[in-house]
Amino acid sequence: MNSLNLVTFLSDFGGSGGYVAACEATIARVNPAARLIHIAHDVAVGDMAAGALVLARVAPLCPPAVHLAVIDPGVGTDRRSIALVTFRGDILVGPDNGLLLDASEALGGLRSAWMLDHSRVREQAELETDSVSATFHGRDVFAPAAALLARALPPSALGAPLHSSTLVRLDRPRATVSSFEAVAEVIEVDRFGNVGLAIPFADLSPQPEHFTVDLPGEELPEWRARLVRTYGDLRPGELGVFCDSWGQVALALNGASAAELLSVQRGTMVRLTSAVGGPTPGPLR
Amino acid sequence: MNSLNLVTFLSDFGGSGGYVAACEATIARVNPAARLIHIAHDVAVGDMAAGALVLARVAPLCPPAVHLAVIDPGVGTDRRSIALVTFRGDILVGPDNGLLLDASEALGGLRSAWMLDHSRVREQAELETDSVSATFHGRDVFAPAAALLARALPPSALGAPLHSSTLVRLDRPRATVSSFEAVAEVIEVDRFGNVGLAIPFADLSPQPEHFTVDLPGEELPEWRARLVRTYGDLRPGELGVFCDSWGQVALALNGASAAELLSVQRGTMVRLTSAVGGPTPGPLR
Amino acid sequence: MNSLNLVTFLSDFGGSGGYVAACEATIARVNPAARLIHIAHDVAVGDMAAGALVLARVAPLCPPAVHLAVIDPGVGTDRRSIALVTFRGDILVGPDNGLLLDASEALGGLRSAWMLDHSRVREQAELETDSVSATFHGRDVFAPAAALLARALPPSALGAPLHSSTLVRLDRPRATVSSFEAVAEVIEVDRFGNVGLAIPFADLSPQPEHFTVDLPGEELPEWRARLVRTYGDLRPGELGVFCDSWGQVALALNGASAAELLSVQRGTMVRLTSAVGGPTPGPLR
Repeated sequence: MNSLNLVTFLSDFGGSGGYVAACEATIARVNPAARLIHIAHDVAVGDMAAGALVLARVAPLCPPAVHLAVIDPGVGTDRRSIALVTFRGDILVGPDNGLLLDASEALGGLRSAWMLDHSRVREQAELETDSVSATFHGRDVFAPAAALLARALPPSALGAPLHSSTLVRLDRPRATVSSFEAVAEVIEVDRFGNVGLAIPFADLSPQPEHFTVDLPGEELPEWRARLVRTYGDLRPGELGVFCDSWGQVALALNGASAAELLSVQRGTMVRLTSAVGGPTPGPLR
Repeated sequence: MNSLNLVTFLSDFGGSGGYVAACEATIARVNPAARLIHIAHDVAVGDMAAGALVLARVAPLCPPAVHLAVIDPGVGTDRRSIALVTFRGDILVGPDNGLLLDASEALGGLRSAWMLDHSRVREQAELETDSVSATFHGRDVFAPAAALLARALPPSALGAPLHSSTLVRLDRPRATVSSFEAVAEVIEVDRFGNVGLAIPFADLSPQPEHFTVDLPGEELPEWRARLVRTYGDLRPGELGVFCDSWGQVALALNGASAAELLSVQRGTMVRLTSAVGGPTPGPLR
Repeated sequence: MNSLNLVTFLSDFGGSGGYVAACEATIARVNPAARLIHIAHDVAVGDMAAGALVLARVAPLCPPAVHLAVIDPGVGTDRRSIALVTFRGDILVGPDNGLLLDASEALGGLRSAWMLDHSRVREQAELETDSVSATFHGRDVFAPAAALLARALPPSALGAPLHSSTLVRLDRPRATVSSFEAVAEVIEVDRFGNVGLAIPFADLSPQPEHFTVDLPGEELPEWRARLVRTYGDLRPGELGVFCDSWGQVALALNGASAAELLSVQRGTMVRLTSAVGGPTPGPLR
């Protein structure tokens, strides 16, 4: 139960233009007591997988809440508007394009799924029912729905149940791990230039002291990396492999950008191979 | 009446340096119960018209509130500090440079206007009266005034009435619309690269199925565009004309930036002409 | 006393990835009634001095609060986690790397210092005690500590007292001022391109009407600058010296970037020399 009247909000709207504020204003109008936590709004435009990752990481840290998430290139088409109720007691609200599903799993699993009826949402929110734009359901449908659900209106008042098997799913990030090598997609490059890979650190077994890092199929130098606990364990220029704060395998430099060093971005495939011998900062060839 | 003790805040201060937070901290000090909605702070530096547009769009979505808006290149000169009371029950606070007027109209029209007396604002806020900087009235005058007004202090306690005819007004964005063609200023380029024009969609009459789009006076290709409801109606690379979520004529690509395609930015003049025949994505010449 | 249950938050986490929200979510979980003011999150990565400056400026404008500040390149090493209690009644929480000390002075001085015990923080916050990551103490230690302190848990419940002489201090920004010239480090370049120098305006004595501005040791033009009160006092292209809103000497252009004109950034040394004669906009040679 969202006894706190808490709403979180993630989107790809960016900071300008007032698009985020338009949603927040609507929430304040429909549910003046709601509290808002902004998760992120500068997710890459239309990148559902990036948004899904951030949402699935942050939502479980919150007390039970309504999680509003809008990355919605299909707005105004026949893609469905949905609300997902989780076993932990959260409700996720947004488009049916895969953005919400990872978070529902991170929140204890999906208890029920609902298709939002736009007219019923507007009616319950006491907003004009016939003024749903074709391009901004964040403001016109999802924010009012989230505001209503946060004040404990049941999802059944806003739409009809959906079978979870019909929900749109995103492709899993690519990763293959053996005891000799791991090849995985970059799922995150953070502001510090740390490179997060689609491999749970626990899956890296054995965990050698040193790795060779390269990009399969790319004509780029190989790098030697050392297994460390944290940035400060690295010498200047030395590449490190570590268990990041989300439990994933990640690459870092101390005080510089590993992503820049390796020329990688979200989606790049990176290969880690067990290496023998001491740490040799810098490219191997 | 702002029974919610709600303050919205728009500025061109950006996210760094703590300038936004300095104002928010001052509001919390003067009125600890006030709630804040940030509308936008990355409006282009000194661009009053851009700020006025965003404010006029978002403010009416809020419940009645005090709207603090500070884009203020004339800070510390003899430009006046003002509070505008609207018929809907909102109060707009900021510099008298045109930033607030469009919003006052969007909020039901101007009921009364007040010139803020800096000393009285400081005194009422129990802040040192002689410490108003010459360059940061957001923190020193406008935020305290907004905080006081949000807790229902009447504007008459902070200054003297002004005649609305003396208020500074911004130039209207340029636009001419006939049944053959529409020429209008770009008033917005959003994060998705959508291009908003200074023409209410309802003024576009007749609404042909296809348009020719060009920039008058520029040696750039013409483009063919199709009238659509939403992004998803467009084929890859096809330019669309649509009614945006604010009711204005806008141009979009599906999953790419129309602004980049057309080489336009805020202030560029764009011409739409009725076109005959089917959709031909790409430049005409 | 932080009777308002107010927490401020400054970091170098940036807006993406949900790192700020992960901390905010944790605060909401540990202390659902806490209110948050975000001071800034786009401080340059790892720039403790920049963060310390912003924190020391904004914190005193707030009512007494818990100030959470995380710029933490040494996370997971043996650098200590601390809480500083000020004479004004604030508590500063973050890493012991100098980030917090200027603010503690701006808040009336340091009353007591505490070393946070990570296990006790986690225990008091009812979070798993053994799940402190090596790279994200913002989420795992500092946010829970701030949340607990904001609900009036005494710092003694979270750790042991520290002697203030053992706290890590940052180097002071470099500045030398005589009656003939002032040479000082650029401590801030704001979004408007204004250049803040490490000289209190009151130290500039005498205050001549005109200055010559140059960068010692750089082969760049000298500029003539005029002492003004505010941006609007400057003619287009004219460089001004003024007392900024924090009481420091600063340089500005009207409607353009002084930092760009002078080719300076944070850390650059700038020299101001008394000049004779009228204002001559533009370089002297």
